[in-house]
Amino acid sequence: MLGAAAAPLGVELVVLDPTPDCPAASVVTDQIVGDFDDAGAIHRLAERVDLVTIEIELADADALEATAVPVHPTPATLRQIQDKLDQKRRLAEAGIPVPAFRAVNSATDLQAALDANDSVMLKARRGGYDGRGNVPVRSPEEIADAMATIDGPAMAESFVDFERELSVIGVKGQDETALFPVTETVHREEILRETVTPARVPPAVRDRARAVATAVLNLIDGRGVFGIELFHSDTDGILVNEIAPRPHNSGHWTIEGAPHSQFEHHLRAVLGWPLGATTLRTPTVMVNLLGDVAAPQPAQLSRLGDVLETPGAHYHWYGKAEARPLRKLGHVTVTRSEREDPDRESLLETGRRLRDSVTFSPP
Amino acid sequence: MLGAAAAPLGVELVVLDPTPDCPAASVVTDQIVGDFDDAGAIHRLAERVDLVTIEIELADADALEATAVPVHPTPATLRQIQDKLDQKRRLAEAGIPVPAFRAVNSATDLQAALDANDSVMLKARRGGYDGRGNVPVRSPEEIADAMATIDGPAMAESFVDFERELSVIGVKGQDETALFPVTETVHREEILRETVTPARVPPAVRDRARAVATAVLNLIDGRGVFGIELFHSDTDGILVNEIAPRPHNSGHWTIEGAPHSQFEHHLRAVLGWPLGATTLRTPTVMVNLLGDVAAPQPAQLSRLGDVLETPGAHYHWYGKAEARPLRKLGHVTVTRSEREDPDRESLLETGRRLRDSVTFSPP
Repeated sequence: MLGAAAAPLGVELVVLDPTPDCPAASVVTDQIVGDFDDAGAIHRLAERVDLVTIEIELADADALEATAVPVHPTPATLRQIQDKLDQKRRLAEAGIPVPAFRAVNSATDLQAALDANDSVMLKARRGGYDGRGNVPVRSPEEIADAMATIDGPAMAESFVDFERELSVIGVKGQDETALFPVTETVHREEILRETVTPARVPPAVRDRARAVATAVLNLIDGRGVFGIELFHSDTDGILVNEIAPRPHNSGHWTIEGAPHSQFEHHLRAVLGWPLGATTLRTPTVMVNLLGDVAAPQPAQLSRLGDVLETPGAHYHWYGKAEARPLRKLGHVTVTRSEREDPDRESLLETGRRLRDSVTFSPP
Repeated sequence: MLGAAAAPLGVELVVLDPTPDCPAASVVTDQIVGDFDDAGAIHRLAERVDLVTIEIELADADALEATAVPVHPTPATLRQIQDKLDQKRRLAEAGIPVPAFRAVNSATDLQAALDANDSVMLKARRGGYDGRGNVPVRSPEEIADAMATIDGPAMAESFVDFERELSVIGVKGQDETALFPVTETVHREEILRETVTPARVPPAVRDRARAVATAVLNLIDGRGVFGIELFHSDTDGILVNEIAPRPHNSGHWTIEGAPHSQFEHHLRAVLGWPLGATTLRTPTVMVNLLGDVAAPQPAQLSRLGDVLETPGAHYHWYGKAEARPLRKLGHVTVTRSEREDPDRESLLETGRRLRDSVTFSPP
């Protein structure tokens, strides 16, 4: 999606990705095949470009730091975000509200966290993604297994009894910042399933979410788009869950729902160009198309008819070759069409119906 | 732009283009380098795909007809449109209003055309594009030069004293047709400069334009998007000027101004998929960025700041390497932004200001 946004801006992209003929390859100028932490590949990439940016936080911060061209967001920011404990510490030190957390280097640490909270989420400090590297711990009996699963430096975070999860896509440009409207996010099994924009929250909650997001942006060094994931709890207000130093799944709605998408904004920001409009064009719902398969198989989506026939529905296919259980393979955005003016509940209903109408597992 | 629309639909494109590393190459799966009338290249293209379509009417109809895969629109339709005389004859025979025209194979024919009209446009039957292949003839003294310039089979068409030019982007799908809202087009030196959508015409004129466009679509064999260029004259009503058997410059506004663009619609149509919504999202003005250079030079656009900073302005760069005098190198679309609700005059004013703010010829 970054590649698709780059072409009309006259921006040429070379992408580094470990998969030969990766999905981005067909919409960018060229691909270098290499792992995200392959210092040699990162060096070869930097030799070909004016500026390097990242779209996945697995990128190697040290190798990025060693390049001769600017990197945005900065490797220092990336490094801080990659380490979930460091990320939370930095936020907490800046007075930004976060769930209670503590470092876990031993079963004793985890026991202490459990003593202070009814239950906690044990998170690997590095490398987690879409729920991987996270283990819920609800009783002392689960401690040993959880420590074995994470098997390395970790942190424990108290479960937040949230009303809902929110997200704000923030943009840090050269001398300006911008926020897209607050989005409501729905996760299951820690994987994002649906977003609703604007979030169905009172104005005061929306304003508080934006204020917290602005505080987060002010902490960050370097330019780019940041996905700022939040909890909203009736008792604790807005808490920062996690920051993604890149365009984020909770901002995919901006392709149709905003004048300039998060992808165009990421490019404008990292290039130091003026930012565009981040206003709302139309209430928008996004649903992810996840691999509804029991085992890996070629990604072939069936029964697309309803998606294509529904006014206001926009289909996005990512071009991944293989469907795996719960893998994100595409999404559908539902916007208001001209003739109808449905509320967000109807849009969400339509989105869910369309998502459930397609399948990677035809009978 | 077709390539950019294809990727999210999961549609893989292989493009045939004579220019190595042509603009489309970086946003599609692969390019075959070959002329549009290179039968061998067209054959190699057809071997790699399920279906062939065209985006330029210079494609060779015979070679397309010889392929083993479906071609949309059909080579027969392409052939008829390629020959401007045949195109007009077919329209006239179907009772669709067109300017007075006649075949011109000799100076005598042209003299006869001039006798019947104050002045005429002499047009090469084949190969004209953006005004090339057209010569205005206003007096008998100009006949010899005009015949020498065209130098081949031609037609003469009476000048229409039009109020304005209009365009309708029509879509022919498998079992359905659709029209985008009527667009106002402004040409200078026979090159499209600006479009305003919806056209600033009374409802009756708009309805008549749509009725004529529908009649044109009904004549056409095969699927795809068609740019239907019209004259609106107070005395003669709506007349068909020309048909383009492909997405058309006068429909570029649909990327921002409609739920699904003409490019997505072209793909849906040729694939036999359901069509999407062709309604208006917002009043939209498009201005072309033409090469304001005296001679060919590398295409490097200067002073882009205003375009990037203006709310509601969308920049589209085509990736062509060389700027040539009046060559189409990009466009800017201006839509309503959330906070303002300007009329089409203000949008047009903004579009013109932005177009005039950029240049390929910095001092």
